[in-house]
Amino acid sequence: MLGMNVPETIVITEVCPRDGFQNHKTPIPTDVKKEIIDDLCGLGFPRMEITSFVSPRAIPQMHDAPEIMRYFNEKWKGVVRGIALVPNIKGAENALEAGAKSLIFALSASEKHNMANTRRTVEGSLAELREICGLQGYEEIGIGIATSFTCPFAGDVPAEDVVRIIGASLDFGVAHITVADTMGTASPLQVEKTLTRIKKEFPGIDFALHFHDTYGFGLANVLTALRMGCDSFETSAASMGGCPFAPGATGNLATEDLVNMAEKMGIGTGIDLARLLTVSRGISEKLELKLSSHAVGACRNF
Amino acid sequence: MLGMNVPETIVITEVCPRDGFQNHKTPIPTDVKKEIIDDLCGLGFPRMEITSFVSPRAIPQMHDAPEIMRYFNEKWKGVVRGIALVPNIKGAENALEAGAKSLIFALSASEKHNMANTRRTVEGSLAELREICGLQGYEEIGIGIATSFTCPFAGDVPAEDVVRIIGASLDFGVAHITVADTMGTASPLQVEKTLTRIKKEFPGIDFALHFHDTYGFGLANVLTALRMGCDSFETSAASMGGCPFAPGATGNLATEDLVNMAEKMGIGTGIDLARLLTVSRGISEKLELKLSSHAVGACRNF
Repeated sequence: MLGMNVPETIVITEVCPRDGFQNHKTPIPTDVKKEIIDDLCGLGFPRMEITSFVSPRAIPQMHDAPEIMRYFNEKWKGVVRGIALVPNIKGAENALEAGAKSLIFALSASEKHNMANTRRTVEGSLAELREICGLQGYEEIGIGIATSFTCPFAGDVPAEDVVRIIGASLDFGVAHITVADTMGTASPLQVEKTLTRIKKEFPGIDFALHFHDTYGFGLANVLTALRMGCDSFETSAASMGGCPFAPGATGNLATEDLVNMAEKMGIGTGIDLARLLTVSRGISEKLELKLSSHAVGACRNF
Repeated sequence: MLGMNVPETIVITEVCPRDGFQNHKTPIPTDVKKEIIDDLCGLGFPRMEITSFVSPRAIPQMHDAPEIMRYFNEKWKGVVRGIALVPNIKGAENALEAGAKSLIFALSASEKHNMANTRRTVEGSLAELREICGLQGYEEIGIGIATSFTCPFAGDVPAEDVVRIIGASLDFGVAHITVADTMGTASPLQVEKTLTRIKKEFPGIDFALHFHDTYGFGLANVLTALRMGCDSFETSAASMGGCPFAPGATGNLATEDLVNMAEKMGIGTGIDLARLLTVSRGISEKLELKLSSHAVGACRNF
């Protein structure tokens, strides 16, 4: 039993510039976004969500998506895989026009959550995804499956619903799958059940996990996934974004918390924790955020 | 692989009235302590650390230990096992005189930490423990082994050091062992290694785990222990106590966070989460604490 069977290295997709900024309440100046993207790209993440091509009427924070995408491509293309979130075919077209090469399309495993978020059925979302996959000019299309474990409206989400979405997406040519616990309410047991099912149905595929730390389950769920051989995670520097539901609650699992635990377990991330903590503190200062990541909160021990 | 191999039920020892109060900076009126003890005992914990028989000069907060112990015995004896912490033979004598029946003696696995905390070598602490075990009138003596995984002064603590302390203690007649991650820096891998060693050396014994959530590893470490069949945990309501090192950092793993995860995994605790959250909120109000437990911070979802 000595020595856990976990991957030697993991891939971290940093989502702060997309998920973090998108959920930030006050407008972030474009120049500040660029600075933070530079700081994060300089840390060596292989993949990063850069921006979101949503309607500026719906989410004014993302009005500068084309400018951010072009800035990223000039400076970091070839170093970091920059990913643009697209909610529909129009967003995908705009993203490609701005030079995005990697797209991620978001939908929910829960029918009710998908309807609330996108005003479409899951079938409708999959039809939209198929259309996006038919576009020209991209290198990679991925999907982010929200509410893969639990839903605020429907409770526990059957693994079958996640499996069905993955199956359809693979048929359309989707190359990257992210399985997300949008509420932070999935227990390690639920994570194990759903991941077991996914791995059984699609033994070859590589997928990423996106956990929240709302109830402190973030690293316990990471550990569960690691023990099942999963080696790809989406996290947010400074724990930004991810719809925290109440004051004091954290949203996305903080990148620094994941890097810290991985380091202490001898799992390589390619990210230097001390430098990451400096960047995360910088983000919190620039955006006047209360830092809720554990690693930063307890930084005196580092 | 479906269905984790974890215990069906766990035993939670609530430590707020001892560990929590002892680490609280402002004096807590004796009546408030009694109220909180009543509130917690009413929740159904089978075991609770009630107070600490330390020198009132060293820790003025614990000056009322005899009164608290007597109050507890009048009201809750036979319902909850009330445990008194004793740092030395004098404390043990005072505890027994006040009517304590269950004692816990604290020492550190790390020689340097033990010296810093108790001004004794580990051998010296074990000699003191032997003397305490020779006293008359107790029902149970336990030990709490601080820095069982990592030490702020010495880094990683060899499992051998923990094993040696457990072995000696069992020889003296100690009936309850608590293995504690005092700094909150133990990774799940380290927890697995040390617990594997303990279980190999002492296959029959029952021991409790005491984790901190300083770096967000609390529930990941609980999960690791659960998967190894451990079913006894020490936690603190409202995450009180446990030497938080920096603002924003949490100390002891919050009882409500453990109960919440256990409940979501179908593991019985005997504790009603909603009632516990009410009590934890009450503690934070009475003591003007900033609540750092995840479950309370995000209580709108409950």
